[in-house]
Amino acid sequence: MTSKIGFIGLGIMGRPMALNLKKAGHALWVHGRRAATMAPLVEAGATSCASPKEVAQNADIVFICVSDTPDVEQVILGENGLVHGVRPGSAVVDMSTISPTATRTFAAALKARGADMLDAPVSGGEVGAINATLSIMVGGGPAAFARARPYFEAMGKNIVHVGDHGAGQVAKACNQVVVAVTIEAVSEALTFARRNGVDPAKVREALMGGFAGSKILEVHGKRMLDRDFRPGFKARLHQKDLKIVIDAAHQLGLAMPGAALVAQHLNALMGSGDGELDSAAIVKVIERMSGAEK
Amino acid sequence: MTSKIGFIGLGIMGRPMALNLKKAGHALWVHGRRAATMAPLVEAGATSCASPKEVAQNADIVFICVSDTPDVEQVILGENGLVHGVRPGSAVVDMSTISPTATRTFAAALKARGADMLDAPVSGGEVGAINATLSIMVGGGPAAFARARPYFEAMGKNIVHVGDHGAGQVAKACNQVVVAVTIEAVSEALTFARRNGVDPAKVREALMGGFAGSKILEVHGKRMLDRDFRPGFKARLHQKDLKIVIDAAHQLGLAMPGAALVAQHLNALMGSGDGELDSAAIVKVIERMSGAEK
Repeated sequence: MTSKIGFIGLGIMGRPMALNLKKAGHALWVHGRRAATMAPLVEAGATSCASPKEVAQNADIVFICVSDTPDVEQVILGENGLVHGVRPGSAVVDMSTISPTATRTFAAALKARGADMLDAPVSGGEVGAINATLSIMVGGGPAAFARARPYFEAMGKNIVHVGDHGAGQVAKACNQVVVAVTIEAVSEALTFARRNGVDPAKVREALMGGFAGSKILEVHGKRMLDRDFRPGFKARLHQKDLKIVIDAAHQLGLAMPGAALVAQHLNALMGSGDGELDSAAIVKVIERMSGAEK
Repeated sequence: MTSKIGFIGLGIMGRPMALNLKKAGHALWVHGRRAATMAPLVEAGATSCASPKEVAQNADIVFICVSDTPDVEQVILGENGLVHGVRPGSAVVDMSTISPTATRTFAAALKARGADMLDAPVSGGEVGAINATLSIMVGGGPAAFARARPYFEAMGKNIVHVGDHGAGQVAKACNQVVVAVTIEAVSEALTFARRNGVDPAKVREALMGGFAGSKILEVHGKRMLDRDFRPGFKARLHQKDLKIVIDAAHQLGLAMPGAALVAQHLNALMGSGDGELDSAAIVKVIERMSGAEK
Protein backbone atom coordinates (compact mmCIF):
# COMPACT_ATOMS: atom_id res chain seq x y z
CA MET A 1 0.00 0.00 0.00
CA THR A 2 1.33 3.42 -0.91
CA SER A 3 1.26 5.86 1.98
CA LYS A 4 1.72 9.63 2.06
CA ILE A 5 4.87 10.12 4.06
CA GLY A 6 6.72 13.22 5.19
CA PHE A 7 10.41 13.32 6.13
CA ILE A 8 12.14 16.30 7.75
CA GLY A 9 15.89 16.35 8.26
CA LEU A 10 17.98 14.89 5.43
CA GLY A 11 21.45 14.69 6.93
CA ILE A 12 23.84 11.74 7.21
CA MET A 13 21.17 9.64 8.94
CA GLY A 14 17.92 11.10 7.59
CA ARG A 15 18.80 10.92 3.91
CA PRO A 16 19.35 7.15 3.67
CA MET A 17 16.39 6.50 6.00
CA ALA A 18 14.10 8.59 3.77
CA LEU A 19 15.48 6.84 0.68
CA ASN A 20 14.62 3.46 2.22
CA LEU A 21 11.02 4.65 2.73
CA LYS A 22 10.93 5.78 -0.90
CA LYS A 23 12.30 2.41 -2.03
CA ALA A 24 9.48 0.72 -0.10
CA GLY A 25 7.14 2.42 -2.59
CA HIS A 26 5.70 5.31 -0.61
CA ALA A 27 4.89 8.85 -1.78
CA LEU A 28 7.30 11.22 -0.06
CA TRP A 29 7.22 14.93 0.88
CA VAL A 30 10.55 16.17 2.25
CA HIS A 31 12.05 19.22 3.90
CA GLY A 32 15.64 20.05 4.84
CA ARG A 33 16.92 23.32 6.27
CA ARG A 34 19.64 23.38 3.65
CA ALA A 35 17.81 23.11 0.30
CA ALA A 36 20.72 21.14 -1.22
CA THR A 37 20.02 18.20 1.09
CA MET A 38 16.67 17.69 -0.65
CA ALA A 39 18.18 17.14 -4.11
CA PRO A 40 18.95 13.37 -3.84
CA LEU A 41 15.40 12.76 -2.58
CA VAL A 42 13.79 14.83 -5.30
CA GLU A 43 15.85 12.88 -7.86
CA ALA A 44 14.39 9.70 -6.34
CA GLY A 45 10.87 11.09 -6.88
CA ALA A 46 10.11 12.92 -3.62
CA THR A 47 8.41 16.32 -3.49
CA SER A 48 10.38 19.12 -1.82
CA CYS A 49 8.59 21.42 0.62
CA ALA A 50 9.47 24.91 1.87
CA SER A 51 8.64 24.18 5.52
CA PRO A 52 7.62 21.48 8.04
CA LYS A 53 4.11 23.00 7.88
CA GLU A 54 3.92 22.27 4.16
CA VAL A 55 5.10 18.68 4.76
CA ALA A 56 2.38 18.21 7.39
CA GLN A 57 -0.29 19.53 5.05
CA ASN A 58 0.47 16.75 2.56
CA ALA A 59 1.42 13.69 4.63
CA ASP A 60 -0.43 11.21 6.85
CA ILE A 61 2.67 10.38 8.83
CA VAL A 62 5.70 12.64 9.24
CA PHE A 63 9.17 11.46 10.28
CA ILE A 64 11.74 13.80 11.80
CA CYS A 65 15.48 13.15 11.99
CA VAL A 66 17.43 16.22 13.13
CA SER A 67 20.28 16.84 15.59
CA ASP A 68 19.13 18.09 18.98
CA THR A 69 16.20 19.15 21.16
CA PRO A 70 16.06 22.79 19.92
CA ASP A 71 16.00 21.55 16.30
CA VAL A 72 13.01 19.29 16.98
CA GLU A 73 11.32 22.15 18.86
CA GLN A 74 11.79 24.38 15.80
CA VAL A 75 10.43 21.70 13.45
CA ILE A 76 7.33 21.02 15.57
CA LEU A 77 6.52 24.29 17.35
CA GLY A 78 8.42 26.94 15.35
CA GLU A 79 7.07 29.41 12.79
CA ASN A 80 5.87 27.23 9.88
CA GLY A 81 6.31 24.24 12.20
CA LEU A 82 4.36 20.97 12.03
CA VAL A 83 1.68 22.07 14.53
CA HIS A 84 0.55 24.74 12.09
CA GLY A 85 -0.16 22.23 9.31
CA VAL A 86 -0.68 18.88 10.96
CA ARG A 87 -4.03 17.19 10.19
CA PRO A 88 -6.16 15.52 12.87
CA GLY A 89 -5.61 11.76 12.78
CA SER A 90 -2.08 12.05 11.41
CA ALA A 91 1.08 10.97 13.20
CA VAL A 92 4.52 12.49 13.87
CA VAL A 93 7.50 10.19 14.50
CA ASP A 94 10.63 11.83 15.90
CA MET A 95 13.70 9.69 15.22
CA SER A 96 16.19 12.28 16.54
CA THR A 97 18.01 11.71 19.85
CA ILE A 98 16.68 14.38 22.23
CA SER A 99 15.47 15.04 25.78
CA PRO A 100 12.78 12.63 27.10
CA THR A 101 11.14 15.52 29.00
CA ALA A 102 10.94 17.78 25.96
CA THR A 103 9.55 14.82 24.01
CA ARG A 104 6.56 14.63 26.39
CA THR A 105 5.93 18.37 25.85
CA PHE A 106 5.99 17.99 22.06
CA ALA A 107 3.65 14.99 22.24
CA ALA A 108 1.15 17.05 24.27
CA ALA A 109 1.31 19.98 21.79
CA LEU A 110 0.62 17.62 18.87
CA LYS A 111 -2.14 15.82 20.80
CA ALA A 112 -3.88 19.21 21.19
CA ARG A 113 -4.00 19.34 17.35
CA GLY A 114 -5.36 15.78 17.13
CA ALA A 115 -2.06 14.21 16.02
CA ASP A 116 -0.29 11.27 17.64
CA MET A 117 3.43 11.33 18.37
CA LEU A 118 6.07 8.63 18.73
CA ASP A 119 9.66 9.08 19.83
CA ALA A 120 11.79 6.57 17.94
CA PRO A 121 15.52 7.28 18.23
CA VAL A 122 17.86 4.89 16.46
CA SER A 123 21.21 3.22 16.97
CA GLY A 124 23.45 1.72 14.31
CA GLY A 125 25.00 4.75 12.62
CA GLU A 126 25.21 5.70 8.95
CA VAL A 127 25.89 2.09 7.91
CA GLY A 128 22.74 0.92 9.71
CA ALA A 129 20.74 3.74 8.11
CA ILE A 130 21.93 2.82 4.61
CA ASN A 131 21.45 -0.94 5.06
CA ALA A 132 18.12 -0.58 6.92
CA THR A 133 19.55 -2.43 9.93
CA LEU A 134 19.01 0.29 12.55
CA SER A 135 17.91 -0.54 16.09
CA ILE A 136 14.78 1.56 16.76
CA MET A 137 13.64 2.31 20.34
CA VAL A 138 10.05 3.50 20.42
CA GLY A 139 7.99 5.46 22.95
CA GLY A 140 4.28 6.32 22.63
CA GLY A 141 0.86 4.69 22.40
CA PRO A 142 0.35 1.13 21.09
CA ALA A 143 -1.98 2.20 18.23
CA ALA A 144 0.54 4.71 16.90
CA PHE A 145 3.30 2.08 17.24
CA ALA A 146 1.25 -0.46 15.24
CA ARG A 147 0.62 2.16 12.57
CA ALA A 148 4.30 3.15 12.27
CA ARG A 149 5.71 -0.38 12.46
CA PRO A 150 5.73 -1.14 8.69
CA TYR A 151 7.74 2.06 8.09
CA PHE A 152 10.18 1.18 10.89
CA GLU A 153 10.65 -2.20 9.21
CA ALA A 154 11.72 -0.39 6.03
CA MET A 155 14.46 1.38 8.03
CA GLY A 156 15.60 -1.02 10.76
CA LYS A 157 15.81 -4.49 12.26
CA ASN A 158 15.61 -4.57 16.08
CA ILE A 159 12.41 -2.57 16.70
CA VAL A 160 11.31 -2.42 20.35
CA HIS A 161 8.23 -0.64 21.75
CA VAL A 162 9.77 0.39 25.08
CA GLY A 163 6.85 2.27 26.67
CA ASP A 164 4.89 5.52 26.67
CA HIS A 165 5.99 8.97 25.35
CA GLY A 166 9.67 9.55 26.08
CA ALA A 167 10.47 5.87 26.72
CA GLY A 168 12.26 5.54 23.37
CA GLN A 169 14.45 8.52 24.30
CA VAL A 170 15.12 7.02 27.74
CA ALA A 171 16.23 3.75 26.10
CA LYS A 172 18.48 5.66 23.69
CA ALA A 173 19.95 7.60 26.63
CA CYS A 174 20.69 4.25 28.33
CA ASN A 175 22.27 3.01 25.09
CA GLN A 176 24.59 6.03 24.93
CA VAL A 177 25.57 5.64 28.60
CA VAL A 178 26.44 1.96 28.16
CA VAL A 179 28.38 2.62 24.95
CA ALA A 180 30.34 5.56 26.43
CA VAL A 181 31.20 3.86 29.74
CA THR A 182 32.19 0.64 27.97
CA ILE A 183 34.51 2.65 25.68
CA GLU A 184 36.05 4.09 28.87
CA ALA A 185 36.47 0.54 30.24
CA VAL A 186 38.24 -0.69 27.11
CA SER A 187 40.35 2.50 26.87
CA GLU A 188 41.67 2.11 30.41
CA ALA A 189 42.29 -1.63 30.03
CA LEU A 190 44.24 -1.37 26.76
CA THR A 191 46.25 1.60 28.09
CA PHE A 192 47.03 -0.39 31.26
CA ALA A 193 48.28 -3.26 29.10
CA ARG A 194 50.50 -1.02 26.96
CA ARG A 195 51.97 0.77 30.00
CA ASN A 196 52.81 -2.64 31.45
CA GLY A 197 54.71 -3.51 28.28
CA VAL A 198 52.07 -6.03 27.21
CA ASP A 199 50.67 -6.16 23.65
CA PRO A 200 47.13 -4.70 23.85
CA ALA A 201 46.12 -6.67 20.73
CA LYS A 202 46.92 -9.92 22.56
CA VAL A 203 44.93 -8.71 25.57
CA ARG A 204 41.91 -7.87 23.41
CA GLU A 205 42.18 -11.34 21.86
CA ALA A 206 42.32 -12.97 25.31
CA LEU A 207 39.29 -10.99 26.52
CA MET A 208 36.99 -11.51 23.54
CA GLY A 209 34.42 -14.23 24.01
CA GLY A 210 34.65 -14.15 27.82
CA PHE A 211 32.76 -12.01 30.34
CA ALA A 212 34.69 -8.94 29.18
CA GLY A 213 33.42 -9.50 25.63
CA SER A 214 31.32 -6.76 24.02
CA LYS A 215 30.56 -5.13 20.70
CA ILE A 216 32.65 -2.18 21.94
CA LEU A 217 35.71 -4.36 22.70
CA GLU A 218 35.31 -5.83 19.22
CA VAL A 219 34.72 -2.66 17.16
CA HIS A 220 36.04 0.28 19.23
CA GLY A 221 38.85 -1.82 20.74
CA LYS A 222 40.00 -2.53 17.18
CA ARG A 223 39.82 1.18 16.29
CA MET A 224 42.01 1.97 19.32
CA LEU A 225 44.60 -0.65 18.30
CA ASP A 226 44.62 0.56 14.69
CA ARG A 227 44.61 4.24 15.77
CA ASP A 228 41.74 4.62 13.30
CA PHE A 229 39.42 7.26 14.76
CA ARG A 230 37.39 8.03 11.63
CA PRO A 231 33.72 8.08 12.67
CA GLY A 232 31.65 5.89 13.20
CA PHE A 233 29.89 8.06 15.69
CA LYS A 234 31.41 11.45 16.42
CA ALA A 235 32.60 12.38 19.92
CA ARG A 236 30.78 15.72 19.44
CA LEU A 237 27.43 13.95 19.11
CA HIS A 238 28.20 11.55 21.92
CA GLN A 239 28.97 14.57 24.11
CA LYS A 240 25.57 16.04 23.18
CA ASP A 241 23.80 12.76 24.00
CA LEU A 242 25.49 12.45 27.40
CA LYS A 243 24.49 16.04 28.18
CA ILE A 244 20.86 14.95 27.70
CA VAL A 245 21.45 12.14 30.20
CA ILE A 246 23.29 14.27 32.75
CA ASP A 247 20.61 16.98 32.52
CA ALA A 248 17.85 14.40 33.01
CA ALA A 249 19.76 12.85 35.96
CA HIS A 250 20.06 16.36 37.45
CA GLN A 251 16.28 16.82 37.18
CA LEU A 252 15.64 13.37 38.67
CA GLY A 253 18.12 13.70 41.52
CA LEU A 254 19.96 10.62 40.34
CA ALA A 255 23.73 10.23 40.66
CA MET A 256 25.32 8.62 37.58
CA PRO A 257 29.02 8.84 38.46
CA GLY A 258 30.32 6.68 35.60
CA ALA A 259 28.33 8.54 32.95
CA ALA A 260 29.39 11.88 34.46
CA LEU A 261 33.05 10.84 34.38
CA VAL A 262 32.95 9.86 30.72
CA ALA A 263 31.02 13.05 29.87
CA GLN A 264 34.08 14.90 31.22
CA HIS A 265 36.35 12.87 28.96
CA LEU A 266 34.15 13.78 25.98
CA ASN A 267 34.43 17.42 27.07
CA ALA A 268 38.21 16.95 27.04
CA LEU A 269 38.08 15.57 23.48
CA MET A 270 36.14 18.66 22.39
CA GLY A 271 38.70 20.89 24.11
CA SER A 272 41.59 19.22 22.31
CA GLY A 273 39.91 19.71 18.93
CA ASP A 274 39.05 16.02 18.52
CA GLY A 275 35.25 16.36 18.48
CA GLU A 276 34.95 15.14 14.89
CA LEU A 277 36.72 11.87 15.72
CA ASP A 278 34.91 8.67 16.63
CA SER A 279 34.20 8.46 20.35
CA ALA A 280 36.70 5.56 20.54
CA ALA A 281 39.15 8.50 20.74
CA ILE A 282 38.34 8.58 24.49
CA VAL A 283 41.44 6.36 24.67
CA LYS A 284 43.49 9.44 23.68
CA VAL A 285 42.20 11.28 26.76
CA ILE A 286 43.22 8.37 29.01
CA GLU A 287 46.66 8.23 27.38
CA ARG A 288 47.27 11.99 27.44
CA MET A 289 46.18 12.32 31.04
CA SER A 290 49.21 10.29 32.18
CA GLY A 291 51.57 11.38 29.41
CA ALA A 292 51.21 8.08 27.62
CA GLU A 293 49.74 9.04 24.26
CA LYS A 294 50.90 6.68 21.60
CA MET B 1 51.16 -39.81 27.96
CA THR B 2 50.88 -39.88 31.72
CA SER B 3 52.63 -36.95 33.37
CA LYS B 4 53.53 -36.32 37.01
CA ILE B 5 51.49 -33.32 37.96
CA GLY B 6 51.21 -31.31 41.16
CA PHE B 7 48.23 -29.16 42.14
CA ILE B 8 48.19 -26.76 45.08
CA GLY B 9 44.99 -24.99 46.14
CA LEU B 10 41.81 -27.07 45.96
CA GLY B 11 39.07 -24.47 46.49
CA ILE B 12 36.01 -23.67 44.37
CA MET B 13 38.18 -23.19 41.29
CA GLY B 14 41.19 -25.43 41.99
CA ARG B 15 39.28 -28.60 42.84
CA PRO B 16 37.40 -29.00 39.52
CA MET B 17 40.51 -27.90 37.58
CA ALA B 18 42.62 -30.57 39.31
CA LEU B 19 39.88 -33.15 38.72
CA ASN B 20 39.93 -32.34 35.00
CA LEU B 21 43.69 -32.99 34.94
CA LYS B 22 43.12 -36.30 36.74
CA LYS B 23 40.40 -37.21 34.21
CA ALA B 24 42.90 -36.55 31.42
CA GLY B 25 44.84 -39.51 32.81
CA HIS B 26 47.72 -37.88 34.69
CA ALA B 27 49.31 -38.90 38.01
CA LEU B 28 48.48 -36.22 40.55
CA TRP B 29 50.11 -35.00 43.80
CA VAL B 30 47.97 -32.45 45.65
CA HIS B 31 48.15 -30.08 48.60
CA GLY B 32 45.51 -27.88 50.20
CA ARG B 33 45.93 -25.79 53.35
CA ARG B 34 42.74 -27.31 54.73
CA ALA B 35 43.30 -31.09 54.65
CA ALA B 36 39.57 -31.69 53.97
CA THR B 37 39.85 -30.07 50.54
CA MET B 38 42.19 -32.89 49.44
CA ALA B 39 39.62 -35.68 50.11
CA PRO B 40 37.74 -35.53 46.75
CA LEU B 41 41.04 -35.62 44.88
CA VAL B 42 42.41 -38.52 46.92
CA GLU B 43 39.16 -40.40 46.22
CA ALA B 44 39.81 -39.79 42.53
CA GLY B 45 43.26 -41.37 42.89
CA ALA B 46 45.52 -38.41 43.70
CA THR B 47 48.24 -38.53 46.37
CA SER B 48 47.94 -36.01 49.21
CA CYS B 49 51.04 -34.11 50.30
CA ALA B 50 51.80 -32.29 53.56
CA SER B 51 53.37 -29.26 51.86
CA PRO B 52 54.08 -27.53 48.55
CA LYS B 53 57.68 -28.71 48.97
CA GLU B 54 56.52 -32.35 48.99
CA VAL B 55 54.42 -31.74 45.87
CA ALA B 56 57.43 -30.25 44.12
CA GLN B 57 59.61 -33.23 45.05
CA ASN B 58 57.23 -35.56 43.17
CA ALA B 59 55.93 -33.62 40.17
CA ASP B 60 57.39 -32.44 36.86
CA ILE B 61 54.91 -29.59 36.57
CA VAL B 62 53.10 -27.94 39.49
CA PHE B 63 49.89 -25.90 39.19
CA ILE B 64 48.85 -23.35 41.81
CA CYS B 65 45.33 -21.96 42.25
CA VAL B 66 44.98 -19.90 45.45
CA SER B 67 43.39 -16.55 46.36
CA ASP B 68 45.82 -13.67 46.48
CA THR B 69 49.44 -12.52 46.16
CA PRO B 70 50.46 -13.38 49.77
CA ASP B 71 49.03 -16.90 49.35
CA VAL B 72 51.12 -17.51 46.23
CA GLU B 73 54.15 -16.07 48.02
CA GLN B 74 53.63 -18.53 50.88
CA VAL B 75 53.22 -21.46 48.46
CA ILE B 76 56.37 -20.62 46.47
CA LEU B 77 58.74 -18.90 48.91
CA GLY B 78 57.38 -19.86 52.36
CA GLU B 79 58.70 -22.48 54.79
CA ASN B 80 58.17 -25.81 53.01
CA GLY B 81 57.41 -23.81 49.87
CA LEU B 82 57.98 -24.96 46.30
CA VAL B 83 61.46 -23.43 45.99
CA HIS B 84 62.68 -25.85 48.65
CA GLY B 85 61.63 -28.94 46.70
CA VAL B 86 61.44 -27.91 43.06
CA ARG B 87 63.59 -29.94 40.66
CA PRO B 88 65.71 -28.35 37.93
CA GLY B 89 63.91 -28.62 34.61
CA SER B 90 60.46 -28.66 36.20
CA ALA B 91 57.79 -25.98 35.75
CA VAL B 92 55.45 -24.04 38.04
CA VAL B 93 52.19 -22.65 36.63
CA ASP B 94 50.35 -20.11 38.79
CA MET B 95 46.67 -19.89 37.84
CA SER B 96 45.74 -17.54 40.71
CA THR B 97 44.88 -13.88 40.03
CA ILE B 98 47.67 -11.85 41.64
CA SER B 99 50.01 -8.90 41.15
CA PRO B 100 51.97 -8.83 37.84
CA THR B 101 54.98 -7.32 39.66
CA ALA B 102 55.06 -10.02 42.34
CA THR B 103 54.71 -12.60 39.57
CA ARG B 104 57.99 -11.43 38.03
CA THR B 105 59.69 -11.76 41.44
CA PHE B 106 58.42 -15.32 41.90
CA ALA B 107 59.51 -16.26 38.36
CA ALA B 108 63.02 -15.02 39.14
CA ALA B 109 63.17 -16.99 42.42
CA LEU B 110 62.14 -20.19 40.63
CA LYS B 111 64.54 -19.53 37.75
CA ALA B 112 67.36 -19.43 40.33
CA ARG B 113 66.40 -23.04 41.20
CA GLY B 114 66.34 -24.06 37.54
CA ALA B 115 62.53 -24.11 37.27
CA ASP B 116 60.41 -22.30 34.70
CA MET B 117 57.32 -20.32 35.71
CA LEU B 118 54.14 -19.35 33.87
CA ASP B 119 51.41 -17.03 35.13
CA ALA B 120 48.10 -18.33 33.80
CA PRO B 121 45.10 -16.70 35.50
CA VAL B 122 41.67 -17.79 34.33
CA SER B 123 38.27 -16.32 33.65
CA GLY B 124 34.95 -18.17 33.46
CA GLY B 125 34.15 -18.94 37.10
CA GLU B 126 33.21 -22.20 38.81
CA VAL B 127 31.05 -23.29 35.85
CA GLY B 128 33.97 -22.79 33.46
CA ALA B 129 36.28 -24.70 35.83
CA ILE B 130 33.88 -27.66 36.05
CA ASN B 131 33.14 -27.78 32.31
CA ALA B 132 36.78 -27.15 31.28
CA THR B 133 35.73 -24.03 29.36
CA LEU B 134 37.93 -21.49 31.18
CA SER B 135 39.67 -18.66 29.36
CA ILE B 136 43.36 -18.89 30.25
CA MET B 137 45.68 -15.87 29.88
CA VAL B 138 49.31 -16.91 29.90
CA GLY B 139 52.57 -15.07 30.59
CA GLY B 140 56.07 -16.55 30.38
CA GLY B 141 58.49 -18.10 27.90
CA PRO B 142 57.35 -19.86 24.72
CA ALA B 143 58.96 -23.23 25.62
CA ALA B 144 57.19 -23.36 28.99
CA PHE B 145 53.93 -22.36 27.26
CA ALA B 146 54.29 -25.18 24.72
CA ARG B 147 54.99 -27.63 27.52
CA ALA B 148 51.95 -26.55 29.59
CA ARG B 149 49.54 -26.22 26.69
CA PRO B 150 48.15 -29.81 26.76
CA TYR B 151 47.29 -29.38 30.44
CA PHE B 152 45.63 -26.02 29.77
CA GLU B 153 43.54 -27.75 27.11
CA ALA B 154 42.28 -30.17 29.76
CA MET B 155 41.03 -27.18 31.79
CA GLY B 156 39.98 -24.47 29.33
CA LYS B 157 39.04 -23.37 25.85
CA ASN B 158 40.31 -19.86 24.93
CA ILE B 159 44.02 -20.19 25.72
CA VAL B 160 46.12 -17.14 24.76
CA HIS B 161 49.88 -16.72 25.23
CA VAL B 162 49.83 -12.97 25.96
CA GLY B 163 53.54 -12.31 26.51
CA ASP B 164 56.43 -12.66 28.98
CA HIS B 165 56.27 -13.17 32.79
CA GLY B 166 53.38 -11.16 34.26
CA ALA B 167 51.58 -10.66 30.93
CA GLY B 168 48.91 -13.20 31.85
CA GLN B 169 48.26 -11.29 35.08
CA VAL B 170 48.14 -8.00 33.16
CA ALA B 171 45.54 -9.45 30.78
CA LYS B 172 43.50 -10.74 33.71
CA ALA B 173 43.71 -7.31 35.35
CA CYS B 174 42.40 -5.79 32.09
CA ASN B 175 39.61 -8.38 32.08
CA GLN B 176 38.55 -7.45 35.60
CA VAL B 177 38.61 -3.72 34.77
CA VAL B 178 36.45 -4.18 31.69
CA VAL B 179 33.99 -6.44 33.54
CA ALA B 180 33.70 -4.09 36.54
CA VAL B 181 33.33 -0.88 34.54
CA THR B 182 30.81 -2.51 32.18
CA ILE B 183 28.77 -3.63 35.22
CA GLU B 184 28.84 0.01 36.35
CA ALA B 185 27.61 1.09 32.89
CA VAL B 186 24.70 -1.35 32.90
CA SER B 187 23.86 -0.51 36.54
CA GLU B 188 23.59 3.20 35.83
CA ALA B 189 21.61 2.71 32.61
CA LEU B 190 19.02 0.35 34.11
CA THR B 191 18.63 2.59 37.19
CA PHE B 192 18.19 5.62 34.92
CA ALA B 193 15.44 3.76 33.04
CA ARG B 194 13.62 2.75 36.23
CA ARG B 195 13.82 6.26 37.71
CA ASN B 196 12.31 7.57 34.46
CA GLY B 197 9.38 5.19 34.88
CA VAL B 198 10.56 3.03 31.97
CA ASP B 199 10.71 -0.79 32.18
CA PRO B 200 14.43 -1.69 32.46
CA ALA B 201 13.74 -5.15 30.98
CA LYS B 202 12.44 -3.48 27.80
CA VAL B 203 15.51 -1.24 27.72
CA ARG B 204 17.85 -4.24 28.06
CA GLU B 205 15.95 -5.91 25.21
CA ALA B 206 16.28 -2.81 23.02
CA LEU B 207 20.02 -2.54 23.74
CA MET B 208 21.00 -6.18 23.17
CA GLY B 209 22.49 -6.90 19.79
CA GLY B 210 23.43 -3.24 19.16
CA PHE B 211 26.61 -1.36 20.07
CA ALA B 212 25.61 -1.46 23.75
CA GLY B 213 25.50 -5.27 23.61
CA SER B 214 27.85 -7.23 25.87
CA LYS B 215 28.12 -10.43 27.85
CA ILE B 216 27.65 -8.26 30.95
CA LEU B 217 24.39 -6.71 29.67
CA GLU B 218 23.23 -10.23 28.89
CA VAL B 219 24.23 -12.03 32.11
CA HIS B 220 24.67 -9.36 34.80
CA GLY B 221 21.88 -7.18 33.38
CA LYS B 222 19.57 -10.18 33.77
CA ARG B 223 20.76 -10.71 37.36
CA MET B 224 19.98 -7.04 38.12
CA LEU B 225 16.46 -7.33 36.66
CA ASP B 226 15.80 -10.59 38.55
CA ARG B 227 17.40 -9.22 41.76
CA ASP B 228 19.37 -12.47 41.77
CA PHE B 229 22.77 -11.66 43.24
CA ARG B 230 23.92 -15.21 44.02
CA PRO B 231 27.51 -15.53 42.78
CA GLY B 232 28.77 -15.98 39.98
CA PHE B 233 31.81 -14.03 41.00
CA LYS B 234 31.84 -12.48 44.46
CA ALA B 235 32.12 -8.71 44.94
CA ARG B 236 34.76 -9.44 47.61
CA LEU B 237 37.04 -11.10 45.04
CA HIS B 238 36.35 -8.44 42.44
CA GLN B 239 37.35 -5.83 45.03
CA LYS B 240 40.60 -7.74 45.60
CA ASP B 241 41.29 -7.91 41.84
CA LEU B 242 40.69 -4.18 41.33
CA LYS B 243 43.04 -3.44 44.24
CA ILE B 244 45.75 -5.26 42.26
CA VAL B 245 44.99 -3.00 39.27
CA ILE B 246 44.83 0.22 41.28
CA ASP B 247 48.09 -0.65 43.07
CA ALA B 248 49.79 -1.41 39.74
CA ALA B 249 48.43 1.85 38.25
CA HIS B 250 49.81 3.70 41.29
CA GLN B 251 53.26 2.18 40.67
CA LEU B 252 53.07 3.00 36.95
CA GLY B 253 51.83 6.57 37.42
CA LEU B 254 48.77 5.80 35.31
CA ALA B 255 45.36 7.36 35.99
CA MET B 256 42.49 4.88 35.61
CA PRO B 257 39.55 7.00 36.71
CA GLY B 258 36.80 4.57 35.67
CA ALA B 259 38.44 1.59 37.38
CA ALA B 260 39.10 3.70 40.49
CA LEU B 261 35.44 4.80 40.61
CA VAL B 262 34.14 1.24 40.43
CA ALA B 263 36.70 0.11 43.02
CA GLN B 264 35.02 2.62 45.36
CA HIS B 265 31.63 1.08 44.61
CA LEU B 266 33.02 -2.37 45.43
CA ASN B 267 34.35 -0.90 48.70
CA ALA B 268 30.81 0.35 49.37
CA LEU B 269 29.41 -3.16 48.79
CA MET B 270 31.89 -4.54 51.34
CA GLY B 271 30.88 -1.85 53.81
CA SER B 272 27.19 -2.68 53.45
CA GLY B 273 27.86 -6.37 54.13
CA ASP B 274 27.24 -7.42 50.53
CA GLY B 275 30.73 -8.73 49.73
CA GLU B 276 29.52 -12.30 49.26
CA LEU B 277 27.04 -11.25 46.55
CA ASP B 278 27.82 -11.34 42.84
CA SER B 279 29.49 -8.14 41.66
CA ALA B 280 26.31 -7.38 39.65
CA ALA B 281 25.20 -6.04 43.08
CA ILE B 282 27.05 -2.83 42.13
CA VAL B 283 23.58 -1.81 40.93
CA LYS B 284 22.52 -1.71 44.60
CA VAL B 285 25.21 0.90 45.31
CA ILE B 286 23.96 3.06 42.43
CA GLU B 287 20.37 2.72 43.63
CA ARG B 288 21.13 3.37 47.31
CA MET B 289 23.28 6.38 46.55
CA SER B 290 20.21 8.29 45.31
CA GLY B 291 17.68 6.63 47.63
CA ALA B 292 16.31 4.53 44.82
CA GLU B 293 16.98 0.95 45.93
CA LYS B 294 14.34 -1.35 44.60
